[in-house]
Amino acid sequence: MIKSKYLENLIDAITILPGVGRKSAQRMAYQLLNTNPEKSLHLSQELKNIDTKISKCLVCGVFMDIEEVEKQSSNSCHICERQNRDTSIICVIESASDVYTIDESTNYNGYYFVLQGNLSPIDGRGPSEIGLDKLEKRLSEKNIKELILATNTTIEGEATAHYIKNMATINSIKVSRLAFGLPLNGEIGFLDNETISHAFNERKIL
Amino acid sequence: MIKSKYLENLIDAITILPGVGRKSAQRMAYQLLNTNPEKSLHLSQELKNIDTKISKCLVCGVFMDIEEVEKQSSNSCHICERQNRDTSIICVIESASDVYTIDESTNYNGYYFVLQGNLSPIDGRGPSEIGLDKLEKRLSEKNIKELILATNTTIEGEATAHYIKNMATINSIKVSRLAFGLPLNGEIGFLDNETISHAFNERKIL
Repeated sequence: MIKSKYLENLIDAITILPGVGRKSAQRMAYQLLNTNPEKSLHLSQELKNIDTKISKCLVCGVFMDIEEVEKQSSNSCHICERQNRDTSIICVIESASDVYTIDESTNYNGYYFVLQGNLSPIDGRGPSEIGLDKLEKRLSEKNIKELILATNTTIEGEATAHYIKNMATINSIKVSRLAFGLPLNGEIGFLDNETISHAFNERKIL
Repeated sequence: MIKSKYLENLIDAITILPGVGRKSAQRMAYQLLNTNPEKSLHLSQELKNIDTKISKCLVCGVFMDIEEVEKQSSNSCHICERQNRDTSIICVIESASDVYTIDESTNYNGYYFVLQGNLSPIDGRGPSEIGLDKLEKRLSEKNIKELILATNTTIEGEATAHYIKNMATINSIKVSRLAFGLPLNGEIGFLDNETISHAFNERKIL
């Protein structure tokens, strides 16, 4: 039986979204077809903007609007441009979205460096693939005093943090890692054993 | 702190996909930004096609390519057009994707009628919202002998099936419902009590 070719193509295209398999893509496609086409056209336009309206800060790797870049003289973002930031500290993160999370929830006032993911040789992601050569260059050029490692607490994130620690030590730069322990407002019963064991061993005297 | 406006718009637009909340949309947006922009442009184009390339069969409601429709004389789909189908049976389903599922897995040779979802007055979906007025018109006009109800086995699907049964009975049309019971290749331990209870009570002598 002949299906709609365009519908099949749409379903295939939706599967490029992370975590979306063929069954979910099919459900999404049918739902989009049953709703106002304006919504799909809107999403279509916003996806197009990825290519034409958004770029990366050449210094830290955070995403920014190209039209904002054109307004100013340099190719770097608002954080890297701001004069009153502490230039001697760099916080290293795995994903650009973490910049906003950290900047909003802390009073951190240094610079950022966004990795292109984490080290995972099995997936073909070595040091240069995730931008560590760029970071090394920055460490040797600028007068950096502290490197804060805020990579994820996954095995890959830990391996990446370990690699960067060695890199910074060679350059005689102090390295810190975000504290591990119980997340706030959480129930201990829902936590994994490793977290609880770590939090228990590192308990603080009140 | 100033984020990318276009990035925020993209995240908002992605949340129109069913089952995608803000956190998932954010993850999807960052992943799209980190992959080849061609993929996003491709998805963008396919979404645009929803408006311009895909339409619904005016008879049964299945999706079809507009260019296919233009090649033939009428506005109906390949199933409704085919001469050797049994015109006296209609299978009623909730979603257009179920047409393909049933057509591929059975030797059913009648017509289909796709509802716009199921009856759910609390969500503002009454009989005319899901297209039951169209179905009633078709039942009274054509020489229909049997109506096969293949709505989902959810509460809403059952209520919809019940409503259609009454409608068909008024028109003196035989109504059947897909059989309930254990799904094949499944483990009984994973099934809900209601299914097991039903399958047990409706057991067949071998």
